[in-house]
Amino acid sequence: MAFSHTYTFRVRYADTDQMGTFYNARTLEWFEVGRSELSRAMGLPYIEWEARGVFLPLVEAHVNYHNMASYDHELEMITSVERKGLARLLFTYEIHNKTTGKRIVTGHTVHALINKDGRPLKPPTWITDLIE
Amino acid sequence: MAFSHTYTFRVRYADTDQMGTFYNARTLEWFEVGRSELSRAMGLPYIEWEARGVFLPLVEAHVNYHNMASYDHELEMITSVERKGLARLLFTYEIHNKTTGKRIVTGHTVHALINKDGRPLKPPTWITDLIE
Amino acid sequence: MAFSHTYTFRVRYADTDQMGTFYNARTLEWFEVGRSELSRAMGLPYIEWEARGVFLPLVEAHVNYHNMASYDHELEMITSVERKGLARLLFTYEIHNKTTGKRIVTGHTVHALINKDGRPLKPPTWITDLIE
Amino acid sequence: MAFSHTYTFRVRYADTDQMGTFYNARTLEWFEVGRSELSRAMGLPYIEWEARGVFLPLVEAHVNYHNMASYDHELEMITSVERKGLARLLFTYEIHNKTTGKRIVTGHTVHALINKDGRPLKPPTWITDLIE
Repeated sequence: MAFSHTYTFRVRYADTDQMGTFYNARTLEWFEVGRSELSRAMGLPYIEWEARGVFLPLVEAHVNYHNMASYDHELEMITSVERKGLARLLFTYEIHNKTTGKRIVTGHTVHALINKDGRPLKPPTWITDLIE
Repeated sequence: MAFSHTYTFRVRYADTDQMGTFYNARTLEWFEVGRSELSRAMGLPYIEWEARGVFLPLVEAHVNYHNMASYDHELEMITSVERKGLARLLFTYEIHNKTTGKRIVTGHTVHALINKDGRPLKPPTWITDLIE
Repeated sequence: MAFSHTYTFRVRYADTDQMGTFYNARTLEWFEVGRSELSRAMGLPYIEWEARGVFLPLVEAHVNYHNMASYDHELEMITSVERKGLARLLFTYEIHNKTTGKRIVTGHTVHALINKDGRPLKPPTWITDLIE
Repeated sequence: MAFSHTYTFRVRYADTDQMGTFYNARTLEWFEVGRSELSRAMGLPYIEWEARGVFLPLVEAHVNYHNMASYDHELEMITSVERKGLARLLFTYEIHNKTTGKRIVTGHTVHALINKDGRPLKPPTWITDLIE
């Protein structure tokens, strides 16, 4: 079963582009905020993961764009995490407009676990205990 | 058959993060540069597409991260475009380190075609002629 | 007298660079969030200003960098606004680390007022009334 | 006397915002590219500076916005460097539209020199020799 968390934020002017919606790459920044806030809600902020020598580089990112969203729109992001295979973590994201309920963006990211020297790690028990 | 183009650029300091590699979201900015330069190489820069009333919002983006790349590394990006179904365009990207040949990032983006009012369009012949 | 507002936020991973602190350009994005939240606190969000035909392009930005701040650090930003001459607005910003109290960044931005066609405007009374 | 260098680039879609011009913070990314290319033109890329243990964090940034520039516009940036006082470097930037000659942005950044541990340094002779 996946652990999940809801986070509310607003589209920044910096997020917009000349098409009048958010620029496509900014969704991956939003996803990162989702991961940060999810790990905080789980009781162990990601900054602590790095302090314990575990880094979570992306191996894959996927985004589906469903609807536009403009400057200052209030968005709600639901972020979930689960294990993927033996050595990876899968985060999934769903962002909708908080006012209209319209689905804006969905997606996922897959993360390897590595130590400070870039060597792959299996998830330590303090991580699997958090998630499961 | 897909039309393709090669573009060389360097990792900016702005692209890096505290893990010492490029930040994951920046790849989608690179992909956009790939699309821009590909359309220019095809003889009709994307700015002309918008001037003719055709906009290309993303409906899907996918990125695979293969290796790190650091500030000032010279990267080479091969961008290709082809039709996807009746009404969409598929761009694919492959970025490797120009010096070492190492594959850094691969991915694709799927684009709808819409007019200024957001209404879906089929690709006009001046686009399909460019691509095929 | 200036109207001011305090806003709390965290350094995103996207804000960091390989020097291990926030990347210098991100401060101007933070300032923009400060302006947005200040105008909301004043009772008339900036999105309403644009809806009423008033745009606030920057004519000048200035940033002083005092100390580093890392991923996930909680920062507090105090944003103030006042008139500058007859036709401009001056926003000033002070960002400090919420935990340590250390000053991180100070700065200001100067804004012209223009209409949708880019023509300069004097601040309408609904703006000067808000500020004074 | 200042050492200077000219660099040509295009406005990315990622640089734009919903006002239809470049987003204000992106100018500081452009300035960074100017510094990188200037140091390369001087014969010692900035990546070498860091390899030799010299880091150049910003202590001050200043930007004046003169005119708009849109997606795909070709811009030309002239970057210069000189010493400021005993222990700092001053970079100045002037960006104009390559096609129209219109001045888009001018500005400067002031940089301290620090070592890997964040301790202030005086510019080593290999730097002052480069500049003077």
